[in-house]
Amino acid sequence: MNLSPTLSTAISNFQLPDPLGFGRVTGPVMFVADYINGAWQAGELMTYEPIALNPAATSLQFAQQCFEGLKAFWVEQDEPALFRPDENAKRMARSAERLCMPEVPHTLFLDGVKAVTQAMKPLIPRRSGESLYLRPMLYGMDTQYPLAGSDNFRFAIVCSPSAAYFAKPISVLVERDACRAAVGGTGDVKAGGNYAGSIQATRRCIERGYDQPLWLDPVERRLIEELSAMNICAIIDGALCSPALNGTILPGITRATLLTLADDLGMPALEQPIDINSLLDDIDSGRCSELFACGTAAIVNPIAVLADGQRITRLQQVDAEAARFKAALLGIQEGRSADSRGWMFNSAE
Amino acid sequence: MNLSPTLSTAISNFQLPDPLGFGRVTGPVMFVADYINGAWQAGELMTYEPIALNPAATSLQFAQQCFEGLKAFWVEQDEPALFRPDENAKRMARSAERLCMPEVPHTLFLDGVKAVTQAMKPLIPRRSGESLYLRPMLYGMDTQYPLAGSDNFRFAIVCSPSAAYFAKPISVLVERDACRAAVGGTGDVKAGGNYAGSIQATRRCIERGYDQPLWLDPVERRLIEELSAMNICAIIDGALCSPALNGTILPGITRATLLTLADDLGMPALEQPIDINSLLDDIDSGRCSELFACGTAAIVNPIAVLADGQRITRLQQVDAEAARFKAALLGIQEGRSADSRGWMFNSAE
Ligand SMILES: Cc1ncc(COP(=O)(O)O)c(C=O)c1O
Ligand SMILES: Cc1ncc(COP(=O)(O)O)c(C=O)c1O
Repeated sequence: MNLSPTLSTAISNFQLPDPLGFGRVTGPVMFVADYINGAWQAGELMTYEPIALNPAATSLQFAQQCFEGLKAFWVEQDEPALFRPDENAKRMARSAERLCMPEVPHTLFLDGVKAVTQAMKPLIPRRSGESLYLRPMLYGMDTQYPLAGSDNFRFAIVCSPSAAYFAKPISVLVERDACRAAVGGTGDVKAGGNYAGSIQATRRCIERGYDQPLWLDPVERRLIEELSAMNICAIIDGALCSPALNGTILPGITRATLLTLADDLGMPALEQPIDINSLLDDIDSGRCSELFACGTAAIVNPIAVLADGQRITRLQQVDAEAARFKAALLGIQEGRSADSRGWMFNSAE
Repeated sequence: MNLSPTLSTAISNFQLPDPLGFGRVTGPVMFVADYINGAWQAGELMTYEPIALNPAATSLQFAQQCFEGLKAFWVEQDEPALFRPDENAKRMARSAERLCMPEVPHTLFLDGVKAVTQAMKPLIPRRSGESLYLRPMLYGMDTQYPLAGSDNFRFAIVCSPSAAYFAKPISVLVERDACRAAVGGTGDVKAGGNYAGSIQATRRCIERGYDQPLWLDPVERRLIEELSAMNICAIIDGALCSPALNGTILPGITRATLLTLADDLGMPALEQPIDINSLLDDIDSGRCSELFACGTAAIVNPIAVLADGQRITRLQQVDAEAARFKAALLGIQEGRSADSRGWMFNSAE
């Protein structure tokens, strides 16, 4: 890959942080493509730098913005490989549509993430569990005062060489007050607005010594949905269970992957409504043996404690099945296991 | 007021559009203040220009952003006067808190809107119904990859010399599918994310020949809430009625003002839940004689038609009571009537 001298220098001079952590630094490379007058322009690889925006651009005022998160792995492989980037491209197209933004063409999306990955090769951490975390974003560029969308958009991909989100089992707090998304809202796409409203509960959670809130459905307030930036899975009666996609939950790609992998692990997989009170009872009775979070950033992360106000429930088992799922997933992602489903995309091709 | 030569030139060279319209241009002046290391820095008046943002700033990725809308009027007054800017400052403080952003100090907010107004004097349109529309905004400036807020923020005020939002009575379409905000979400503050999700329904509405969607409550889907960027009022049994603030509706300052002014007009004022089906029946029976939208941008704007799927209901009376409210409001705003409640703030003081 031919890089401009500025970009090559930026990459050579870049120092990774120690410890690496998750998302502590932005890599020196970004990819940018503009949508102008109804057409996508050629994308460009450039050094990471601030972008110029109209202060009242629809992305900054009306949150006409969406993002994605995916990873390139370079552990056992000859070349860094992206995990299911086609699914991220599709989800971003759905997010864009919901927010009245143009779809980023599939090829532009894939070319962009591959180009960033290839340019970042000298900076991709190669130990198991580490990867190049990529964040594609799409934002409305035009100023509007009446409520209306933009006509011009920018697609940008930045990246962060990273380890896993959490380093140990997490504790989760049931969120009984705030809601993440409305029925008929934007919860099932990766709209920025879903996250702004989640920061407060997430922060409150951390202040109280927990790691993540567990969101409940916004109507009955009794069905579990997901965590702030990851989905949730339970092992109930020996089956892998995850809340059914109901229109307010983000359809996580890791979640879908684990539901598929369950078969390889000889475990039934179910997507169904899960009542928080039944779940707490099932944990107490032992019917639910394990809980874990899953997502691109978190990979598969065991949950040790589920707290609901004063009721603190410890999981009887932590990281037994979760560890099996994580091993199966990372095995494919890191090139140790056969990729029989075509999930890995070579970034050099 | 002493302006820099660049700013003075930008103002002298600026041409207002003809027709003026609402929000068609951004004035050449903006006010910017930064929050850095836990402290607000001095604000600065400068020429309007793009701002530099990290591509993955929390404002652009997680919609950690909020805005306000208020007006400076200069019709009969000696100096341009702002309408209830203290209420906008308070609402922005509430929005900021909900989104884990620091409060813009009351004085900074007021000084900022006054400074922009004073600098814009040569460009403030002075015919009745026209004004300087001001848009204060607050955004998170730091890059974050895990879901978290920023530590550094920017407060910016841009402006647009404008006429009213709509030039005639509007038609409104009941939105039965999408929702604007969840209970426990951010609907009662001016978070950007509320608007991103509303663009689609608003656009669909316009495509079908209507002007604005009428949002219903997100749980029972039967109580009317508001329009996409304005509140709604009805005249029912001779009283001014507006949906009760329930946590998902934006508490509009115009709405609150009209509820207060009703007394001056000798009309009872009620805030109560309003069922969409009862409302449609009341319009048919004549109990509800009139409907109108209200908001800073829209002022008071009559509604001529309320459509719910195939059921098209025409209001029997259009712009009788609405016109009285509008006259009372504009009378105060434009300096023709006594401002007995201290709502007008002289921008020169
Ligand atoms: C709200 C939310 N839920 C779930 C997920 C997990 O999705 P994925 O597995 O595609 O990363 C994410 C992260 O993308 C998220 O932001
Ligand atoms: C969603 C929404 N509702 C209502 C209003 C009316 O509020 P105000 O009268 O304060 O302008 C606005 C505009 O600010 C709005 O955006």
